[in-house]
Amino acid sequence: MTWLNLPSDHLFGIENLPYGVFSTAGTSPRVGVRIGDAVLDLPAVAEAAGMESAAVWRAGSLNPFLAEGRSAWRAAREWLTGILTDDSHRGAVEPHLHDVAGVTMHLPIEVADYVDFYASEHHATNVGRIFRPDSEPLTPNWKHLPIGYHGRAGTIVLSGTDIVRPSGQRKPPTADAPTFGPSARLDIEAELGFVVGGASRLGEPVALADTDEHLFGVVILNDWSARDIQAWEYVPLGPFLGKSFATSISPWVVTMDALRAARIPLPGQDPEPLEYLRGGEGEDGASTAYGLDIDYEVEWNGTVVARPNYRDMYWSPAQMLAHLTVNGATVRPGDLFASGTISGPEKDTRGCFLELSWSGQEPITLADGSQRTFLEDGDTVVMRATATGPDGARIGLGECVGTIRPARQE
Amino acid sequence: MTWLNLPSDHLFGIENLPYGVFSTAGTSPRVGVRIGDAVLDLPAVAEAAGMESAAVWRAGSLNPFLAEGRSAWRAAREWLTGILTDDSHRGAVEPHLHDVAGVTMHLPIEVADYVDFYASEHHATNVGRIFRPDSEPLTPNWKHLPIGYHGRAGTIVLSGTDIVRPSGQRKPPTADAPTFGPSARLDIEAELGFVVGGASRLGEPVALADTDEHLFGVVILNDWSARDIQAWEYVPLGPFLGKSFATSISPWVVTMDALRAARIPLPGQDPEPLEYLRGGEGEDGASTAYGLDIDYEVEWNGTVVARPNYRDMYWSPAQMLAHLTVNGATVRPGDLFASGTISGPEKDTRGCFLELSWSGQEPITLADGSQRTFLEDGDTVVMRATATGPDGARIGLGECVGTIRPARQE
Repeated sequence: MTWLNLPSDHLFGIENLPYGVFSTAGTSPRVGVRIGDAVLDLPAVAEAAGMESAAVWRAGSLNPFLAEGRSAWRAAREWLTGILTDDSHRGAVEPHLHDVAGVTMHLPIEVADYVDFYASEHHATNVGRIFRPDSEPLTPNWKHLPIGYHGRAGTIVLSGTDIVRPSGQRKPPTADAPTFGPSARLDIEAELGFVVGGASRLGEPVALADTDEHLFGVVILNDWSARDIQAWEYVPLGPFLGKSFATSISPWVVTMDALRAARIPLPGQDPEPLEYLRGGEGEDGASTAYGLDIDYEVEWNGTVVARPNYRDMYWSPAQMLAHLTVNGATVRPGDLFASGTISGPEKDTRGCFLELSWSGQEPITLADGSQRTFLEDGDTVVMRATATGPDGARIGLGECVGTIRPARQE
Repeated sequence: MTWLNLPSDHLFGIENLPYGVFSTAGTSPRVGVRIGDAVLDLPAVAEAAGMESAAVWRAGSLNPFLAEGRSAWRAAREWLTGILTDDSHRGAVEPHLHDVAGVTMHLPIEVADYVDFYASEHHATNVGRIFRPDSEPLTPNWKHLPIGYHGRAGTIVLSGTDIVRPSGQRKPPTADAPTFGPSARLDIEAELGFVVGGASRLGEPVALADTDEHLFGVVILNDWSARDIQAWEYVPLGPFLGKSFATSISPWVVTMDALRAARIPLPGQDPEPLEYLRGGEGEDGASTAYGLDIDYEVEWNGTVVARPNYRDMYWSPAQMLAHLTVNGATVRPGDLFASGTISGPEKDTRGCFLELSWSGQEPITLADGSQRTFLEDGDTVVMRATATGPDGARIGLGECVGTIRPARQE
């Protein structure tokens, strides 16, 4: 369909067209679109075509484009699809394609506010069992609202950034007092991050039916977590230093438009949520009570240790966004909210090592025979994800990679 | 001392010199310094003097100046003190002074990350008694680390912004399920906000001894809180929508340099905290284990209902910043962290209505004879604060004001 003659099973085919920020040697970061194994220099091709909108893509982040809102995103996708499928544009476009292997990728967005949800019933149940063995695993509010909390926007880093093992306070239940040192229970969380665009006004919630106006796209997100630091600090005001040292995201933002074929019904919500969280029609009459069929693969030093799927999530992205703003809080271009760990009902669909090793009690054996519970220095974790596309195609989300470096010496 | 001939008890005398962002009719927001009842147009006077640094003050926020770091802040203060005290500069400076009554103030910083601490032992104890009557009021971690959590940077608003009563889920303990509606327990929290400058590198903590390099100044901060929404949502991941609808800050950032005379010893910490939180020498050999002598006054519809003082806080600002970064999290120019509610041991030094009315059980009588527990529509809260200055002077922090508007109708 595209004149680039990509194989039909290419994960970055014409139905995908994710946005990122890239540079080539000696040039400034700018917006690019991935097509096949190439990156299209968006401001360059748009300027050559005399488009007024070219300037927003000259920026070093997607934020100005995100600010333009839904109609601009749709127009851009239509135009891109046109120039990449109509052979008459080939001569004008080809000079602006760069081999993806030769470019440097940058953080795609300047993160405004970052919120992390907790939308997997399986994950929340497992964590409840592990962290609060004497209580009901799910807190009484869990099925009434998508629980979330704010995270640190300034430490969101691009896939490939090394992660220095954090130090902090931790206190084993049997100790009298906390001690200070490197985290001994460093973990991952496989999540989906939602990139938000447009802006809302203070005091005016984004209704469920209007969430499509603000949901731009998704990234793979690894919410690195120091479980020992987290366990000691998180009561009563929530996770803080156990999470804030680093959160990694993949470089390509796959648009919600590219994920239309991946929409599936939610697994079901019982009890029915309050009115403002209840299904209904969004854009083009589609239900806002959608899940997403996205396969994840979590690889630890080359061994795939888990295969979660986003379809198992309890709360929909639309519900998370509607909840986030129901008190009148604004959204801004560049806001990012994450799903929380993606875990399914089977053991091999658990999206963090805390669950996979059941708090370290059940070690995981890697392909080389070594055993792991939590991350060791030098370990590398790769998350990959693909979504259902139209006509049997797969939509690639790319990958999110990080390697653990030793704790800083005092 | 200054040629402006201010009375010696003026709260914005030559020892204060706080920074803000202002505009006059038809002009762009830019950095100004308050002196007496005037605002000095900083980029204008600096440009007239041919200073290279003038451009950073042309910005619509303090962030570029914050990015320059400690030595630039010191140099600016020295230069400002010089031109405002040496009569020979009067002719060059006077044309750039505007009556503060005639300018429009703007949010002084573009907030990067916002963290809210919980540093008052009296407040944490009272809240523990009210929210968790069956447990010890202070959680076991409280005296080992300054508890904090991330808040929403995008809903930090300037003093004077009306506050729309938030709606959300709340569930009385006796009800079976939550209901949706306007918060019926809308509260304030009188806090001190710390504006952070400079930048650190990922993975490299800011040591206690280096915190002066990053602490630029303070604002009065009102952490509006919907107690019913908060109570239902906050377990297990902390406050979210109960806080994120709005946080107000005062327009003038009073520098840490202006607060040198306000430094006092902390009330005392027992048990002694871990090494990275332990006192020691900061800039100029001064102890990092300092509190601040800042008097607050909380006025509700014209009646002063509380007079907290910052001297009662358990954790020092330096400890909060060192803790915030000990896991390797970066700080960025424009970061803001708040102290948490400032409450003292006496009833009239409690900094929120939850405590003052003991969760609504002990109504507060205002001067007009009306009674209050939580905020009603149309209520106005004014927080004012002054700090100890040199030679008996007082350093004004100005005021932080907000009026409650009715909840949005569906």
